[in-house]
Amino acid sequence: MTMNMPENPLAHAAPLTDADRALVDGVLARRLRPLAKTITLIESQREDHKARARQVLEALLPHTGGAMRVGISGVPGVGKSTFIEALGLYLIGQGMRVAVLAVDPSSSLTGGSILGDKTRMELLSQNPAAFIRPSPSAGSLGGVAEKTRETMLVCEAAGFDVIIVETVGVGQSETAVAGMTDIFCLLQLPNAGDDLQAIKKGIMELADLIVVNKADIDPMAATRAQAQMKTALHMLRPASPNWTVPVLTLSALQKQGIADFWKEVAGYRAALVKSGEFDAKRRHQALAWMWDLIDAGLRSRFRGHPRVKDELPSLARAVEAGATTPAAAAQRLLGHLG
Amino acid sequence: MTMNMPENPLAHAAPLTDADRALVDGVLARRLRPLAKTITLIESQREDHKARARQVLEALLPHTGGAMRVGISGVPGVGKSTFIEALGLYLIGQGMRVAVLAVDPSSSLTGGSILGDKTRMELLSQNPAAFIRPSPSAGSLGGVAEKTRETMLVCEAAGFDVIIVETVGVGQSETAVAGMTDIFCLLQLPNAGDDLQAIKKGIMELADLIVVNKADIDPMAATRAQAQMKTALHMLRPASPNWTVPVLTLSALQKQGIADFWKEVAGYRAALVKSGEFDAKRRHQALAWMWDLIDAGLRSRFRGHPRVKDELPSLARAVEAGATTPAAAAQRLLGHLG
Repeated sequence: MTMNMPENPLAHAAPLTDADRALVDGVLARRLRPLAKTITLIESQREDHKARARQVLEALLPHTGGAMRVGISGVPGVGKSTFIEALGLYLIGQGMRVAVLAVDPSSSLTGGSILGDKTRMELLSQNPAAFIRPSPSAGSLGGVAEKTRETMLVCEAAGFDVIIVETVGVGQSETAVAGMTDIFCLLQLPNAGDDLQAIKKGIMELADLIVVNKADIDPMAATRAQAQMKTALHMLRPASPNWTVPVLTLSALQKQGIADFWKEVAGYRAALVKSGEFDAKRRHQALAWMWDLIDAGLRSRFRGHPRVKDELPSLARAVEAGATTPAAAAQRLLGHLG
Repeated sequence: MTMNMPENPLAHAAPLTDADRALVDGVLARRLRPLAKTITLIESQREDHKARARQVLEALLPHTGGAMRVGISGVPGVGKSTFIEALGLYLIGQGMRVAVLAVDPSSSLTGGSILGDKTRMELLSQNPAAFIRPSPSAGSLGGVAEKTRETMLVCEAAGFDVIIVETVGVGQSETAVAGMTDIFCLLQLPNAGDDLQAIKKGIMELADLIVVNKADIDPMAATRAQAQMKTALHMLRPASPNWTVPVLTLSALQKQGIADFWKEVAGYRAALVKSGEFDAKRRHQALAWMWDLIDAGLRSRFRGHPRVKDELPSLARAVEAGATTPAAAAQRLLGHLG
C-alpha cells in the first residue's frame, strides 16, 4: 500500500512515555510480547489506558496499511477454524506472516471467547509466523469491533502480511467485519437452502467471495449448492462494479482448494487496485467508521443529559401512542442541549 | 384505531391563537380550505410558521390515526397515476374519502412536482371526496418526508379514510414512505428482469404487496412476471411474520383488478391487526421517526459547532488517508462540544 500520507493534525498531542515508546518500538521490531501488551492496552476499559492506547496507535499509524485484510464469516459448524488453520498454514508456506483476530460480541455473555480460540487451531497457533488473538470480551458490538479494528492496525505495524478477521454468521457482526476488511468471504455448507438463509439474514450481499466448504463429503451436493448460490447472487446488488463474486467449492479438512481460494483473493485485490477501488474502499471505511463513532458519541451524550434522561421515557411513550408528534418530541429534547 | 391515549407531555405548551384555533376547527369540520391552509403552514420554512404548525398539529393529534395509510411506489411509466386514480375512484364508490400525497425529493430541483399532480388524475381531482396534494417542493428528502408525514396526520384529522402516499421508484424515498405507511405497495411492469431491478435497488424487500400493472397489454407476459416475482420474493427476508407478500396482476387503465387489490389490502390489515403487529408497527414507525429527527438534529448541531467546522475537513482527510484513527478524530471533535 503506498499512499501520500498527509500530516496527522493530532500527531503533536503529547510525547510518548518511555514505557509506551518501548511498546511502539517492540511492535515495529515485530516482537510478540510488546504486540500482545499493546493489544491488551487497546482492550482495556480504564480511562488512562484508553488515552495511552490512542497515543501508541497514533505512533504506529504511519506503519499500517500494508496487510491484506480478509474477513471470514459462516455459521457455527461450517468449519471456520479448520479453514482458517489450513489457509494460515498455506500462507505461511508461501513465506507470509498471518494474524488471526475475531469479532464475537457474544463472548462477553459466555464469559469466554468462542472465536480465535487457539485450541481450535493447534498447528497454526504453534507456528512462529502466526499470531492468534481471541475476540475482545467486553462491551457492545460497536466496542468489540472498534478494538478489533485497532488491533488489526497494530498487527499491520508488526509486519503481518495477512490479517484474518473471523466472525460468526448469525448477526450484525458481519457488517462490522465487512466494514473493516478488504475482502469479505462467506463460508457455506453444501446444503440446499443455505443460500436462502444467508440472503434472508442479509449476509450474502456483503460477500466478495463465497466458499462452499466440506465439498469432500458429498461433491455433487457441493456442486449443486454452488450453482444455487451463483443464481442467488444474480438477484443481489453487486458489492463492487469491478468484481463478480465467485463461488468456490473446497475442503478445508482435506486442504483441497486452499491455493485456489487465495488465487481468487489475489485476483480480487488486483482488480480493485487497478480500478482504484481498493484504496477508495479503505478511505470510505475509515471515514464511515469515524462517523459511526461520532454518531454513537452524540447519542450517548444526548442520552446522558439530565433533562433528556428525565423526559425521554414519557416523551417516547407519547410518540409511540400518537399523543405527540415525533417532530415535537425531538425538538423538545434537542432544545435541552442548549 | 383505538388506543389508550397517554397524556401528551407537551400539550400545555401554549394556547392556540384564534387564527390557529380556526384552522384546527376547520380541519376537524372536514373543510378543504382550512385543510389546505394548514398544510401550507406545515410546509413553510419560516420559523414562526414552524412553531405555529407544531401547535396546530398537537391540537389535531388526538383526532389522527383513523385512516389506512397506503404507500405506492413504482418506476416512471409503470402507471402510478392511472392506478391511483382508478383506486381512488373505486374507494370513493365504496363510500370512502381519499387523500393522495406524494414524496418526491427531486421536485426541489425540477422546480415543480412531478407527483401528485392534479392534471394526471383529472377525474379524481374533481371529485369532492378526494384531496390531492403534490409533494412539498423544498428541502432534503428528510424534510420532504417529514412534511408529508405531518400532512398525512392532518388529513386523518380531516376524516379521510384512506391516505395514499405516492413516491417514485428510483431512490431512497421508498424507505421513507414505507416508514410512514401501513402497507407499502410496489407497482411493476410485466417485463422480465423488472423484479431484478427492484431487488437490486433494495425496494422489493420493502414491499408488502406487489402489483404487475398493464396486464391487459400482454396477459402471458404479466403472468410470467408474476411467477418470477413470486420466486424472487422467496429469496428475501419477509417484512412481516404474519403476512406472505402477494403478487397481483391487474390493468389500472381497464380498471381490472382494483377490487382484488383492495381486498388484499384489507386482508393485510386484518392479519396484522389480529396479531397486534398493526399497532406495533405504527408505534415503531413513530419512535424510529423521532430518533431519525434526533440523530439529524444532533449531527446538524455538531457540524455547526465553530471548532468542528474548522477541524472537520482536515481531520476527515487524515482519517481517509490513514494518518489518524477514526477513534482519535471522533474523540477530538466530540471533545469540542464541551
